[in-house]
Amino acid sequence: MTSRALEVIGSAEVIVGYHPYVELIADLTEDKEIFTSGMRKEVERCQKAVELALSGKKVALVSSGDPGVYGMAGLVLELVTGTEGAESVQVEVVAGVTAATAAAAQLGAPLMHDFAIISLSDLLTPWELILRRVECAALGDYVIALYNPKSKKRIQQIVEVQQCLLQHKEAQTPVGIVRNVGRQGEEKVITTLGQFLDHPIDMFTTIIIGNSQTYVEGSWMITPRGYRL
Amino acid sequence: MTSRALEVIGSAEVIVGYHPYVELIADLTEDKEIFTSGMRKEVERCQKAVELALSGKKVALVSSGDPGVYGMAGLVLELVTGTEGAESVQVEVVAGVTAATAAAAQLGAPLMHDFAIISLSDLLTPWELILRRVECAALGDYVIALYNPKSKKRIQQIVEVQQCLLQHKEAQTPVGIVRNVGRQGEEKVITTLGQFLDHPIDMFTTIIIGNSQTYVEGSWMITPRGYRL
Repeated sequence: MTSRALEVIGSAEVIVGYHPYVELIADLTEDKEIFTSGMRKEVERCQKAVELALSGKKVALVSSGDPGVYGMAGLVLELVTGTEGAESVQVEVVAGVTAATAAAAQLGAPLMHDFAIISLSDLLTPWELILRRVECAALGDYVIALYNPKSKKRIQQIVEVQQCLLQHKEAQTPVGIVRNVGRQGEEKVITTLGQFLDHPIDMFTTIIIGNSQTYVEGSWMITPRGYRL
Repeated sequence: MTSRALEVIGSAEVIVGYHPYVELIADLTEDKEIFTSGMRKEVERCQKAVELALSGKKVALVSSGDPGVYGMAGLVLELVTGTEGAESVQVEVVAGVTAATAAAAQLGAPLMHDFAIISLSDLLTPWELILRRVECAALGDYVIALYNPKSKKRIQQIVEVQQCLLQHKEAQTPVGIVRNVGRQGEEKVITTLGQFLDHPIDMFTTIIIGNSQTYVEGSWMITPRGYRL
């Protein structure tokens, strides 16, 4: 967590967030009013945060990782700018460490060259667009970081992504998988594009797929930047 | 800065880094040995850090932003894994807030959907590959974050990027420019793909180009995630 995030949480009167994320910062919020809700209640949570702010409270709306990367920053700004009377709410977006770079640090240095971040969740995005992005990333030889790769009900997408990538990339391309990055129970494995589906993958997993230059040495996954050594 | 970065700097005996970055944390390093060097001395700095670590010192090698995104993490791991006798050096990569998400937070929420990060520096990467990546990102309708967009000597690349993007994207596509993000003298402007070259751009600038859904409302640049409001 950044020092700015700590400051903002410390000075807030109300904490709003997805229940498991608010639980992760329980030691910072003992003296505060708390409003939590469950999965897929994003709109409700953000509306609540905006309402509370309009009533004069200092509100911290908590996302995991960086709130501007598939987090709540966009929804709050959509509500504040789109709701009659809400324009007076002052919003600060506090940047954080997004899962891709947090996972990269555990794996070594896989993101040292141009990379693409793609969420495989097709709840809000047509699957065809997601798959097109995967293909474009492969054609551009990007390192690729996948968010929300798989859930209990959504198990086929990651298989299609692997098939798509294998048409453009070597099966031996290094792939790093990190689960629960930065949290209790953090696990990581370095494997290959051909084999990575043999490992456990869920919604708490970030997957990083190397570019054509990425290699594994010892326990590190490294994408060289191009310096001559 | 994250609390882990503060801890690691606090416990280090030697600080190694690019001179201006080490200067930014002068108040944290008063009691420490310092080794700094100038631009393009990356290999020398990392070699020095590895040598110092091999001599038994606790060394903090400082990058700005996230060290795993065009920073020094990769070079250190290349040296540690590739140098005879250096395998015994213990390395921890400390993730940070990379310029793209720091800049995004200042602009609003432009990175709420899939995005590509591209460095326009062609010192270590063929220009043709960089331009191919720009085109692939456009074809995939990614939000695009550009690092190192322009330097005193390197002024033509950003013009070619604009030309390439204008073949695939509307001239009215929102573009956010942030200079000195998170530092003294931070400046930002929200403009369009057709007009953004009229604004000052240098090596301390991060540029974020919206996808086809990105819009500007008030002083915010917002890429909707797709929630129904």
